[in-house]
Amino acid sequence: MAVMPIERLAIIGVGLIGGSLARALKRAGTVGEVVGCGRNAADLQKGVELGVIDRYSTEPAQAVAGADMVLVATPVGSMRSIFEKIAVHLGPDTIVTDAGSVKASVIADARAVLGETFARFVPGHPIAGTEQSGIAASFADLYIDHRVILTPVADTGEAPCKAVQAMWEAAGAYVEIMTPEAHDEILAYTSHLPHMVAYALVDCLARAEPTTELLRFAAGGFRDITRIASSSAVMWRDIALANDGALLKALEAYRSSIDAVMNAIRDGDGAALEVLFERARQTRESLIAAKGKRVGE
Amino acid sequence: MAVMPIERLAIIGVGLIGGSLARALKRAGTVGEVVGCGRNAADLQKGVELGVIDRYSTEPAQAVAGADMVLVATPVGSMRSIFEKIAVHLGPDTIVTDAGSVKASVIADARAVLGETFARFVPGHPIAGTEQSGIAASFADLYIDHRVILTPVADTGEAPCKAVQAMWEAAGAYVEIMTPEAHDEILAYTSHLPHMVAYALVDCLARAEPTTELLRFAAGGFRDITRIASSSAVMWRDIALANDGALLKALEAYRSSIDAVMNAIRDGDGAALEVLFERARQTRESLIAAKGKRVGE
Repeated sequence: MAVMPIERLAIIGVGLIGGSLARALKRAGTVGEVVGCGRNAADLQKGVELGVIDRYSTEPAQAVAGADMVLVATPVGSMRSIFEKIAVHLGPDTIVTDAGSVKASVIADARAVLGETFARFVPGHPIAGTEQSGIAASFADLYIDHRVILTPVADTGEAPCKAVQAMWEAAGAYVEIMTPEAHDEILAYTSHLPHMVAYALVDCLARAEPTTELLRFAAGGFRDITRIASSSAVMWRDIALANDGALLKALEAYRSSIDAVMNAIRDGDGAALEVLFERARQTRESLIAAKGKRVGE
Repeated sequence: MAVMPIERLAIIGVGLIGGSLARALKRAGTVGEVVGCGRNAADLQKGVELGVIDRYSTEPAQAVAGADMVLVATPVGSMRSIFEKIAVHLGPDTIVTDAGSVKASVIADARAVLGETFARFVPGHPIAGTEQSGIAASFADLYIDHRVILTPVADTGEAPCKAVQAMWEAAGAYVEIMTPEAHDEILAYTSHLPHMVAYALVDCLARAEPTTELLRFAAGGFRDITRIASSSAVMWRDIALANDGALLKALEAYRSSIDAVMNAIRDGDGAALEVLFERARQTRESLIAAKGKRVGE
């Protein structure tokens, strides 16, 4: 691959995602220097002390100087301004990629701002993470056997795409290529919708009275189903707005499933409830059976 | 306590809940003989082989003969017919309790059918379980440090109530007393609603096209949030219908939270989304912090 090992990797937004990639590449010996960039110097200093990054700057323009690979791993709502800040400071061969959970909007931002570097911009999304965030939560194993989706468009160069693929594979991930539209639709259903559902469930409990009494009784099932509601509010605000079209479509479909349940309860229609619950149960069982299977397996 | 140890315990419906109680009481040495009852003789025979029950009958009337304690642990929709079958076969001192997830409807069934035994009927609900069901999934530790709610009414005798409490405490649980109405409202929010939410989420994926492609991408967050959708469809059909009033109220509240999310996305209102997500995140954090705390702690 063209740029493996990476001589200098700049990571804008060194949290769980960026920090874990840095740790994994360092362990694999496939990166020279890692330069971190973020708004909080104390966090970045901690990143240096933890050995996750080698040095840092709070200025994106400075952080990308001399980098052959740049990963933007900030909330998707701030990516356009990051691209604006780094555009004229990128080298002629610098590859730029991102870790955003929405692809069409990020691609539009990159296309509008990056100029000729857009041919070396490889849109990406590692399907990994926990509800934890921050550099202290990062770990080298995060990507092992996890999927990374790349969504190159017609203008995306083949060599940059292969280089980004090689980077993620070095971190232990496996890479799939698809269109940005397919990505955004699939993720709307399988990730963005579940987060909205979890947030709404906790929200409705938080608004109920008396909440304290209710929370005291929330059993294991409630804790599991709402785990992802502990995720970063800013990150999910950005995702919800950036993928609004596909997400609203998924939410409409979900709402009609909720309505079906409510109507069946109202009508005392046990047969309808049993069919819906049993189909859901079987669908989930097949999901568990498929767990960990990769394409073609 | 009056009837500890229990000389003969009859369990109608020997699944996860009934089987685990039998195992726990046997281990604690606080039960003499355990008689199982169910519709499937092969399952009951397996229960004997596993040492969970000592003998069995597929006839409730026979199973309760000579028992000093009877636990009905079937889906709540079948409890009335169980009560009808056992009513005239209960001894003059036999205590009857249940493990149903809804209390007002079960109490109404018991009141209508049990006659004078109703004074010795103690409505109960162990807040424990997994998405697994069946006697093979039962284990003696299920109730340790788990809450069992008893909802005695004005007619419920004090001695039977204390005996049932002692039984659950011997299994490792701690007991709380509340009204049936409070129980049904709290459980509607903290348990029944999350199950509807999880079933609806999987249902909407199952109805989407192409489902297979979507399921392949369902990440860890999706698997967690839908874990409880693997629960028994019949059991949850019965719960949804038996607690229809409180559950519909909780579903209405939930639906308005979903609508708030959808409206904010439609309006591009990032501030509203961030407030809702952050409040949910903090509410859930306080829930986790309260994990395991008992009343008064």
